[in-house]
Amino acid sequence: MDQLAIGVDLGGTSIKCALVSRGHGLVHTAHCDTEADRGPDAVLANMAGLVRLMLDRAESPVLGVGVGSPGIINWDRTTVSQPPNLPGWTSIHLGDSLSPLIGTPVRVLVENDANVAGLGCAHYGAGRRFDSFIMVTLGTGVGGAIIYRNRIFRGATGGAGELGHMTIDYDGPADNHDICGASEAYLGQRFLSVHAARMARQNPASSLNDLLASQGELEPRLIYDAAVQGDETAREILNWAGHKLGVLLGSAVNLLDIRKLVVGGGLSAAGDFIFDAARSTILQYVTHGLREGIEIIQEPRGNEVGVLGAAHLVFHDADDRSASGTSA
Amino acid sequence: MDQLAIGVDLGGTSIKCALVSRGHGLVHTAHCDTEADRGPDAVLANMAGLVRLMLDRAESPVLGVGVGSPGIINWDRTTVSQPPNLPGWTSIHLGDSLSPLIGTPVRVLVENDANVAGLGCAHYGAGRRFDSFIMVTLGTGVGGAIIYRNRIFRGATGGAGELGHMTIDYDGPADNHDICGASEAYLGQRFLSVHAARMARQNPASSLNDLLASQGELEPRLIYDAAVQGDETAREILNWAGHKLGVLLGSAVNLLDIRKLVVGGGLSAAGDFIFDAARSTILQYVTHGLREGIEIIQEPRGNEVGVLGAAHLVFHDADDRSASGTSA
Repeated sequence: MDQLAIGVDLGGTSIKCALVSRGHGLVHTAHCDTEADRGPDAVLANMAGLVRLMLDRAESPVLGVGVGSPGIINWDRTTVSQPPNLPGWTSIHLGDSLSPLIGTPVRVLVENDANVAGLGCAHYGAGRRFDSFIMVTLGTGVGGAIIYRNRIFRGATGGAGELGHMTIDYDGPADNHDICGASEAYLGQRFLSVHAARMARQNPASSLNDLLASQGELEPRLIYDAAVQGDETAREILNWAGHKLGVLLGSAVNLLDIRKLVVGGGLSAAGDFIFDAARSTILQYVTHGLREGIEIIQEPRGNEVGVLGAAHLVFHDADDRSASGTSA
Repeated sequence: MDQLAIGVDLGGTSIKCALVSRGHGLVHTAHCDTEADRGPDAVLANMAGLVRLMLDRAESPVLGVGVGSPGIINWDRTTVSQPPNLPGWTSIHLGDSLSPLIGTPVRVLVENDANVAGLGCAHYGAGRRFDSFIMVTLGTGVGGAIIYRNRIFRGATGGAGELGHMTIDYDGPADNHDICGASEAYLGQRFLSVHAARMARQNPASSLNDLLASQGELEPRLIYDAAVQGDETAREILNWAGHKLGVLLGSAVNLLDIRKLVVGGGLSAAGDFIFDAARSTILQYVTHGLREGIEIIQEPRGNEVGVLGAAHLVFHDADDRSASGTSA
């Protein structure tokens, strides 16, 4: 019988949830506002509500709940500490907290949201072609995941893959962690929007100026649309972003010798407007012996990989338990 | 009975060789000139001569020969391709080439020289304290190795750990592979010597100017000696190098979540003159959640870790064969 699990993507703005079939992917989905400002209890209640909804719809037993979350995840994947954007949340054991709210004991596994996206990409997205790849998610922040031989490479304590905080210019602009030249200080949505606004003002003929006046901020989508319509400034901005992405990924390839690079998140929708520059740039930043076979590709499933990967945490765990003879 | 293996460190200038006991480390050592300019046959004959010398001295059977080499190593660890500094060498299967020269069939395993140094460090050097660490070797070039759970992390094809080619400034000076801002373009010996000479000329009172006049070049050792004697310019140069090292290692920590960093190679002898700056800088380049427990330490065994790690390739291989039931 096909295995079922529930995947949850816990974000600062919304919570997405899905019932996932191992063989067929998404079965049901639902989402709601996170209501982060109402504190951790409200967030947990919202998560529990979505999980209960999925449990009610499942036509066969559900193996457990996987959660992708911001913040620091402990090695055992049970606890989330200090998630940015979730005020008041210190350290919470998700299984212990959610089970009473759901009304039944539930096995809950949690993993960093970027790693979960990587896992979803590996099993249901563009990563299916590769045993090993690096995933970078270009959203509000820049997240990363290393998938090595079909598993998440977690590092010594579970925190590997922080591509957004790798510097590409030790003297460059600072990100939210005060790291100079961190890739997020170029590619994170807020930083890119600020750069785009500056570029627009320097190019009065650009259509971006009207958008800036009407919208107040240049979100990636607006820049992409303008680029599609032939706006040269918009194309230049995306080209600039692609260059930074290529530098970042080049550094990562040198360190890891993993040459397949999957890009997800909102900005990845800009497609070749950023990928062309990334693809030509990366070759300039990788040592000769590692240049062959480099591929940068777009994750077409968008944010769906989050809930899919979260559910897959549960499937992997079931495999491991079955292999080691532990009962579930 | 204690296991014996032979380790070879194949460099562009000299070949070092050792008979190594798994339990006790170095038993005998020998070295000779590489004679790279005489071509691959001469280099292989020199290697074979040293290996034969060690075989003759071994008082019990030797499991095999491990070699640390520059160049591209195939996944099976049998073949070395295009080693820089070894002219005329295209692709050579070391076991097949050395056995007839030694006069007896010998099992030969080869691995990237930086990885082999990391393995030696893990089992006989500063890395013994850690399951996982990153080793960076500051020599003519800047080599790197990732030791993850006591094994070399090899990446998808065996080429992981190229820290020397990771960029820390996408618009910075180019290294030998034309990579702008590669760490080697600051920390590689030739690059650092050029920087030091420029700094000396800008500071006429520095004792480095006399050394530059008499020696023609400021090798790291000379800069270190001047720093010990209180030369402010020498200290500034090493501080500058330490800053670049800290930036580089910070990027690597973000990607890998491996927070123990061992520094070897000639420049590491400068000790706290570079490590103080590296230790304060790295914290500025690592994301908040990964700063705790970061340690940068010096490998005290120097170049010995090369032959020790090379021999350890053979011990690991014997373990793997014995675990999988394959006969050796």
